Amino acid sequence: MTTLPGPTLGIVGAGQLGRMLAEAAAPLGVDVIVSDPTENAPAAPVAREQLPGGFGDPDTVRRLAERVDVLTFEIELVDPETLRTVSEETDTPVHPHPDTLSLIEDKLIQKRRMESAGIAVAPFREVEDAADVHDAAEQLGYPLMLKARMGGYDGRGNVAIEGESDVEPALERIGGPAMVEGFVDYERELAIMGVKGDGEIDTFPVTETIHREEILRETVTPARTDEETIERAEAVARDVLGEMSGRGVYGIELFETTDGEILLNEIAPRPHNSGHWTIEGCVTSQFEQHVRAVLGWPLGSTERRCPTVTANILGDVDRRRATLSNVDRALEADGCHLHYYGKDEVYELRKMGHLTQTGGIDDDPSELLDATRAVRDELTFR
Amino acid sequence: MTTLPGPTLGIVGAGQLGRMLAEAAAPLGVDVIVSDPTENAPAAPVAREQLPGGFGDPDTVRRLAERVDVLTFEIELVDPETLRTVSEETDTPVHPHPDTLSLIEDKLIQKRRMESAGIAVAPFREVEDAADVHDAAEQLGYPLMLKARMGGYDGRGNVAIEGESDVEPALERIGGPAMVEGFVDYERELAIMGVKGDGEIDTFPVTETIHREEILRETVTPARTDEETIERAEAVARDVLGEMSGRGVYGIELFETTDGEILLNEIAPRPHNSGHWTIEGCVTSQFEQHVRAVLGWPLGSTERRCPTVTANILGDVDRRRATLSNVDRALEADGCHLHYYGKDEVYELRKMGHLTQTGGIDDDPSELLDATRAVRDELTFR
Repeated sequence: MTTLPGPTLGIVGAGQLGRMLAEAAAPLGVDVIVSDPTENAPAAPVAREQLPGGFGDPDTVRRLAERVDVLTFEIELVDPETLRTVSEETDTPVHPHPDTLSLIEDKLIQKRRMESAGIAVAPFREVEDAADVHDAAEQLGYPLMLKARMGGYDGRGNVAIEGESDVEPALERIGGPAMVEGFVDYERELAIMGVKGDGEIDTFPVTETIHREEILRETVTPARTDEETIERAEAVARDVLGEMSGRGVYGIELFETTDGEILLNEIAPRPHNSGHWTIEGCVTSQFEQHVRAVLGWPLGSTERRCPTVTANILGDVDRRRATLSNVDRALEADGCHLHYYGKDEVYELRKMGHLTQTGGIDDDPSELLDATRAVRDELTFR
Repeated sequence: MTTLPGPTLGIVGAGQLGRMLAEAAAPLGVDVIVSDPTENAPAAPVAREQLPGGFGDPDTVRRLAERVDVLTFEIELVDPETLRTVSEETDTPVHPHPDTLSLIEDKLIQKRRMESAGIAVAPFREVEDAADVHDAAEQLGYPLMLKARMGGYDGRGNVAIEGESDVEPALERIGGPAMVEGFVDYERELAIMGVKGDGEIDTFPVTETIHREEILRETVTPARTDEETIERAEAVARDVLGEMSGRGVYGIELFETTDGEILLNEIAPRPHNSGHWTIEGCVTSQFEQHVRAVLGWPLGSTERRCPTVTANILGDVDRRRATLSNVDRALEADGCHLHYYGKDEVYELRKMGHLTQTGGIDDDPSELLDATRAVRDELTFR
């Protein structure tokens, strides 16, 4: 039985996801303490306190665990073994379960597990050297996508291989354990935020994700596809959630192929960029839902409130402190919500913030997308 | 022209209004520093820092001003003269203007000014002693409401006088400069959150407020009155805003009399309990709007998103630390949003939090009110 004042939540990582988790925890009366190696990380000003220290540093995680009632993380770079040990030693529950993190953090293990659970994924092969890539190319054909098994995000750790001459340079760039995936001829990309609570499972409405250079640029909800595809995507998301252990929100990225098939792309054991639209677009946001879930509280409604588009604000200058200009246009745009993450430094394609545009119930998502892009495209760092 | 990272906002006072201002400032990339005499005040965990010190203490206000780009306040107990002096000495803009605070903080001056601006108010008289009250009773009739000119809020500083025998005890209870108001035979109470930006003026939709023991219990939006009354209420709100100087959000409390007249009741130069519904119920909340306004940023849309009801969670035990129970029901209720202010101590009728229930576009506000009350009424401190 939930009572208030609420528990204190510890979050390993204090980037924008930690910041938006803290923003969502505050109305619930839940105090948040974060840990992060970067001084004055995005979540610091809205959390009770930021403990300094690396994601994989056992001392930092232990100090955090000792201060809080429940532990979670906003970044996969945290070490599952550290979480497991600290959780046991300090008797502090951690959600999602470190086993889930172990399963997800290695993309090859993730794929194998999902495939063996009967979930359709893009064809893939483990590769150790150029010979393995050539073998894979014979079976799957070019182009291939070479992926680092560990530590990649926002397109980092992914290198496209168009033909034989790309193989050696690609392997060198990855420089560690890798896998290849066959080319997926997809119609569009979709994503679903799933959630596991205390005996409850739920999914947020299907969203359409638009990437360029493997970085998410925009999301469109409702996804511009047919009802059957949406139902199939939801079924896949539920299958994926069945394989996850521990409570929390999971980001589930999908391909809708040109044949109308749904393939699982990747899973994130945490709130995800493709779910930012839920802050204004749903009754409960993915961040509030994650807080509720990891605390073992009842989940909130995942119902969509209105058509909603998000557009990421990405860095467009070399690494330095810089100022975002033309913000007035975003503040003035009808139904436009600004989210700025407060990062000290900008660099090319760094996620600095996002815009969410909510529309009227009957507004056309494509028009909303055009309007949001127009506003976002005027934002530039100086 | 607005740029990001944003300015730092200083707020004198760190109660629930400061907390919700900080919650609204975070997504905008605006850092908040607060000052408050109570250690670990509600806004502290979500603000960058809380400076200790009294609302009227010039040193505290000066230290705050030196740390921030713009100064505002969430409580009328701050001294206008202090704000004026510190603002000049530190060259830090303060909004709303201290003149407005001077005007509003003395209820008698407020009434006189509004009356002379042609705004209808309940009949009132300045009173210094029992003879003055008797004179007023002859003209206005009993019952009368005796009001402290300064420092009253949430019904504190108001004493009803039903007949002659109440006069002396009432004056003793107020114990300072006072006024009386004639009885207003009202059909319902209404409130409008108004906002003055940089050359812009706007109003949020009219809400219906329900008080008991002079403490706000619930709000219902849209207000359950006719369109003409709503238009007249909006016109009064605009007249009131015309008399305010300095940017910011203003809470404007109104009576709808049984004759269908709109009378101004009171003005608050800050976000107000009757505007909490805007967090989930409007495109822009009163808190985000206040942040935008005091920073001189463009205002956001005040459009209503859906029928919305709020219900206050009030203390129901003697002064002590206590735990709110039956929270699960609120977390589970469809469309119900919990706001808990994180105050350390509970006492009778203290505002500890509120629930906001959002409904479907066509939902009946009365049914929504019943549902929200049912959930709120089960909450109890132990």
